[in-house]
Amino acid sequence: MTTKHDTSRVYHFPVRVYYEDTDAGGVVYYANYLRFAERGRTEAVRECGQNWPDVFAKHNMYFVARHAEVDYLASARLDDLLDVKTEFVAVGAASVTAKQSILRGETVLAEIKVVLVAINPAGKPVRIPPQLRQIFGG
Amino acid sequence: MTTKHDTSRVYHFPVRVYYEDTDAGGVVYYANYLRFAERGRTEAVRECGQNWPDVFAKHNMYFVARHAEVDYLASARLDDLLDVKTEFVAVGAASVTAKQSILRGETVLAEIKVVLVAINPAGKPVRIPPQLRQIFGG
Amino acid sequence: MTTKHDTSRVYHFPVRVYYEDTDAGGVVYYANYLRFAERGRTEAVRECGQNWPDVFAKHNMYFVARHAEVDYLASARLDDLLDVKTEFVAVGAASVTAKQSILRGETVLAEIKVVLVAINPAGKPVRIPPQLRQIFGG
Amino acid sequence: MTTKHDTSRVYHFPVRVYYEDTDAGGVVYYANYLRFAERGRTEAVRECGQNWPDVFAKHNMYFVARHAEVDYLASARLDDLLDVKTEFVAVGAASVTAKQSILRGETVLAEIKVVLVAINPAGKPVRIPPQLRQIFGG
Repeated sequence: MTTKHDTSRVYHFPVRVYYEDTDAGGVVYYANYLRFAERGRTEAVRECGQNWPDVFAKHNMYFVARHAEVDYLASARLDDLLDVKTEFVAVGAASVTAKQSILRGETVLAEIKVVLVAINPAGKPVRIPPQLRQIFGG
Repeated sequence: MTTKHDTSRVYHFPVRVYYEDTDAGGVVYYANYLRFAERGRTEAVRECGQNWPDVFAKHNMYFVARHAEVDYLASARLDDLLDVKTEFVAVGAASVTAKQSILRGETVLAEIKVVLVAINPAGKPVRIPPQLRQIFGG
Repeated sequence: MTTKHDTSRVYHFPVRVYYEDTDAGGVVYYANYLRFAERGRTEAVRECGQNWPDVFAKHNMYFVARHAEVDYLASARLDDLLDVKTEFVAVGAASVTAKQSILRGETVLAEIKVVLVAINPAGKPVRIPPQLRQIFGG
Repeated sequence: MTTKHDTSRVYHFPVRVYYEDTDAGGVVYYANYLRFAERGRTEAVRECGQNWPDVFAKHNMYFVARHAEVDYLASARLDDLLDVKTEFVAVGAASVTAKQSILRGETVLAEIKVVLVAINPAGKPVRIPPQLRQIFGG
């Protein structure tokens, strides 16, 4: 059963743009917004007292992306200080959906949705343990 | 006006997976499928006799992503030889939509849709010139 | 004339290791230590009140690497919190040398030396302006 | 015992520069030359009938960088077709040294030296098996 929730905790994580993130167009390379998004999700989970190596050690599972989408509204540039905003908006037995935004000040540069699935090392979907479900609002 | 087309040319480009593309999960990092997709689009355009530096030099425009989405169906792994399949499925005055797949043999690993917009150096959308529209099936 | 200095200011910058930084070997990909090093140099310059876009706007110059070397002593892993230690150890008319270390706690994981050259947009070496020389200990 | 050899086989591997490889300076990002170099070493080994996953499966070992250095002589740019030239110039019991160049036509853009060490999954150096030593000229 997937739980959708209207109100959910919002996490913020600052990301600085370095040369490594940009491309010859003078802006952040389009795939790198997904890197920033993953940093935001990782830090949201950390704020709740969990981290990926511990989750793997305790539960023998980790998360992989099943779906990702990005709407690019404006470009991030070298040396920008960005805000990665993360909300977990739905959680299922083995999956979780994050809605994220990349902002520069008040300006939304990108809107991102990522669906993650919990799998074991053999690649089989597994139930998300209660301690983690709680983080995702389940 | 956006032109959708039922039949369109399909381009193929081989991509080898190196250590740089993988992550500690032992598979290709989720954002990197968008890198492979961009290589595929670039090479599709090159097969039609165009390349990005020339397009910029002649038309003072280049393409940026407006939207990207990826469905991850199976994981690519170190040393895999992938096939990036690219079709341009719709073209508008200033935009073009690509549908792409990443395959290993017959197995589809990822399905990708990217909407690109033609802009000038000031960031304003501009008309795609006829020579390029033709590539995109317009 | 190159100025070498025995005592120089030491800068520290924290870097967290995310999936994007690792490879299928389970450790940080070897080229990515140079990314971390560049973040450290950028933040050292920022601590001194300068940043790359301003330097370019004011002086019409930027820095490019002329030489880089890394000694890999131990591996950084997913979720590690690293310390990037930066010292500028020599400054010439158009060049600056940084010695950097990547540490996890007290353990030195990598030792890095980078020589940067100041160039103008035409690619010609230019004199480093006094405000910047000062940062580099000149 | 380390074997140095005066004449050694030279491998060539073509690399195309895409947006992902460049930065806001309009050129290939300095760390990415090490990515290109690793592709070149991987393909040199493949030309000799070996690949990393097989080496790991058969010998329970893989190679990690112990040292890397790059001299940057000229910049690679978007859409350049580069030639990665690889020679294995010395081989020890557990280590191998590669000298590599990145060229655009006749122009050498970068000269690279990488020392690799063979380790087991526990991180201990191990003897390079004869089949591989042969590749490296030992």
